[in-house]
Amino acid sequence: MADIVIRNIDCITGESAESGKDMLRNVTLIIKDGYINKILTEEESKTPFGQELITKECGNAAYILDGNGRVAAPGLINTHTHIAMGLFRNYADDLELMDWLQNEIWPAEAKLTNDLVEVGTRLGVAEMFRSGTTCFSDMYFFMEDTAKVVKETGIRAVLSRGMAGIAPTAEQALVESRELFEHWHGFDHERIKVMLGPHAPYTCPDDYMRKVMDLSHDIGAQIHIHLCETKGEVENVVKATGKTPIAHFNDLGVFDTGCVAAHGVHLTDEDLDIMKAKNVRVAHNPQSNLKLASGIANVPAMLAKGITVGLGTDGSASNNNADMLEEVRLAATLHKATHFDPKAIPAHQALALGTVEGAKVLDYQDLGLIKEGYRADICLYDVTGMHWLPRYNDVASLVYAANSSDVQTTIVAGKVVMKDRELLTIDEEQLRYDVMSKTEIFAK
Amino acid sequence: MADIVIRNIDCITGESAESGKDMLRNVTLIIKDGYINKILTEEESKTPFGQELITKECGNAAYILDGNGRVAAPGLINTHTHIAMGLFRNYADDLELMDWLQNEIWPAEAKLTNDLVEVGTRLGVAEMFRSGTTCFSDMYFFMEDTAKVVKETGIRAVLSRGMAGIAPTAEQALVESRELFEHWHGFDHERIKVMLGPHAPYTCPDDYMRKVMDLSHDIGAQIHIHLCETKGEVENVVKATGKTPIAHFNDLGVFDTGCVAAHGVHLTDEDLDIMKAKNVRVAHNPQSNLKLASGIANVPAMLAKGITVGLGTDGSASNNNADMLEEVRLAATLHKATHFDPKAIPAHQALALGTVEGAKVLDYQDLGLIKEGYRADICLYDVTGMHWLPRYNDVASLVYAANSSDVQTTIVAGKVVMKDRELLTIDEEQLRYDVMSKTEIFAK
Repeated sequence: MADIVIRNIDCITGESAESGKDMLRNVTLIIKDGYINKILTEEESKTPFGQELITKECGNAAYILDGNGRVAAPGLINTHTHIAMGLFRNYADDLELMDWLQNEIWPAEAKLTNDLVEVGTRLGVAEMFRSGTTCFSDMYFFMEDTAKVVKETGIRAVLSRGMAGIAPTAEQALVESRELFEHWHGFDHERIKVMLGPHAPYTCPDDYMRKVMDLSHDIGAQIHIHLCETKGEVENVVKATGKTPIAHFNDLGVFDTGCVAAHGVHLTDEDLDIMKAKNVRVAHNPQSNLKLASGIANVPAMLAKGITVGLGTDGSASNNNADMLEEVRLAATLHKATHFDPKAIPAHQALALGTVEGAKVLDYQDLGLIKEGYRADICLYDVTGMHWLPRYNDVASLVYAANSSDVQTTIVAGKVVMKDRELLTIDEEQLRYDVMSKTEIFAK
Repeated sequence: MADIVIRNIDCITGESAESGKDMLRNVTLIIKDGYINKILTEEESKTPFGQELITKECGNAAYILDGNGRVAAPGLINTHTHIAMGLFRNYADDLELMDWLQNEIWPAEAKLTNDLVEVGTRLGVAEMFRSGTTCFSDMYFFMEDTAKVVKETGIRAVLSRGMAGIAPTAEQALVESRELFEHWHGFDHERIKVMLGPHAPYTCPDDYMRKVMDLSHDIGAQIHIHLCETKGEVENVVKATGKTPIAHFNDLGVFDTGCVAAHGVHLTDEDLDIMKAKNVRVAHNPQSNLKLASGIANVPAMLAKGITVGLGTDGSASNNNADMLEEVRLAATLHKATHFDPKAIPAHQALALGTVEGAKVLDYQDLGLIKEGYRADICLYDVTGMHWLPRYNDVASLVYAANSSDVQTTIVAGKVVMKDRELLTIDEEQLRYDVMSKTEIFAK
């Protein structure tokens, strides 16, 4: 019994340009039990067998969607964010990093409650559904509340309870991380997964990282950590240990159970060799790295080395939105200029970083493509806007020209969560009221 | 008699953060004869005088607009584009510059007709109105047809007929440029202005530039030219003349009648000194420079030197849209990272580059601010979207978080050209049909 049938739709599949499968024209998608069950070509759909199948599945489907004026593409995957920080969007900008953190963000975060994180997460999910993101990897506090919102809204998420060894909550964070993993890891056919979230080398001393690794080995959880984001961070570790953060963490064994390194802006060639050997996956956050003046990660070098790279927005205090299409566009354009090479990251590859490669970063092997047998996380874009004309190349359109507000319908795990720009699992009026009223406590 | 009254509106004025006038809350804007005639504060509007004035003006107004859920901001000013190249959006991407130009763009452009340029211009204007741009500076061919579309659609424009001294049309281009200037310069209270558009040093030898300058002196037209866009361009001029393109052009006298230099990616300190001394204004095109792998212009150095800088999208073959908000965002974020300085270009300054500074680049001294006595080129943004929440700082929201599709209503020269996302001067259905049918000749 089908969940959804999408008729006569053009698909940006997320496959490479060379595959010959990067676009499917006028196909019918049959979605069952959270997966793309069948893709019927135009010819197949006209055979007696195809017609019968479509009639049967349409009869059973919860939704029959029409592809006219729409293009389907894999949902975007945000591999690194602190989604509830949407509460601090535009709260403090254009400041030195430590001034920003110590005098603005940390004092504001000290006022956070589980109630606020719930509202902030719902705000982020609404924003993500509206802009084409179907999966996010989060590191923050009150993660049980984030998990509840993920459950209720239907988005896919990899959750990490942030842990800082230098904080008074250091031990409690380990306990909560274990509980989070036990409660939620694998929930709803892996719609939720859990990782451990030690914050960064500069907040997690070696002794604490050893406790994190013990927990990681004990429960089988992977690690999600900020790594090599700023020059200063790297210099301090080199000064303290004589080694780069990557070399030092490798010696500590941090990469042995699977690791996602967020940022990776400042890396040596030797670092890249270690990361390739230990399958350290990278969450590249181009816009946040620009805005916080961290620098520009050498993504072409990572890709040349065969390292798995995905994209992330980082939190909306440093971005200042959760718009993944901006990250895809930046990944495609930024590295061309810094390498003086217009072929550095072509459109298809940038889209892959935002979809199927991001899925691999989060250890999903059947996510991020429109392909039979893949998880049904799909967006339908309205392609009738002026900025989509003419239609020479829909992949280039999506990467270089589209607007994230072109997303009309969003599907996660085979369920429609936004239809014709109406959110089905979030009450936006209530949410708007909650955000405005509950953030009054942050007024300066 | 008022053209438009906008009631109870919050305004991002475009003024600096330090001015204390960067935001106006809950004011009434009275627009007359193409100008912002009066801004009534909330208090003023409640006095008997204010109430009487508003009642009178509302009685006469063609439009009374309600500010509820909206924020007004100055229309964005695109200081460098080839707008009809929207016809070649996504036509050819991720290629080496000369391969792209010689094997893709130039052969396609050879098929252009005045009819196609008219359609391409209308496509661009529709896209600009939808994304908040109210003025553009164009350099392209069939500029009479562009002017007709500018006249009919109501947008503001500075038009330059592209001229290449190495092309068979070199002499004809000079004649047409003179005619264009005589026909259109100053049209409709300077809604249209005309400049001369010698293409670039590598297409305009010194002898030809002398003819351009003669014409410039003769009719009093300023010059709009591509300058120092790529490393190779600069190296070739240095090789041929022993001077940088800026030093060489200065010696030739190119800057004596007023000059807008598009790009300015590769400049020496001495170049900047010359540009400051000769008031050479710069059209910075960050996204195109990234995508074509030209490099990243040193805008903070220009601003430190006191050079006037505006923003541009360049043509949609190298961008690939006419979305100026992307350029504002990039101008704010890109230079932070390349200078490792989060204060490099703050939000207010980036917005100014996209508005009032862009106006100065195009030699409008009363455009680009929401201020009494300024030309009424204004956009109303819908601020009810999730990505505008919370509302700590609307300027930061517009620069870092907004989506260009938030533009609901667009006003140029005191006339409403888009209301509630409906274009009033362009038939979009017809335009869509025209674009799709007429671009079939470019099919590969």
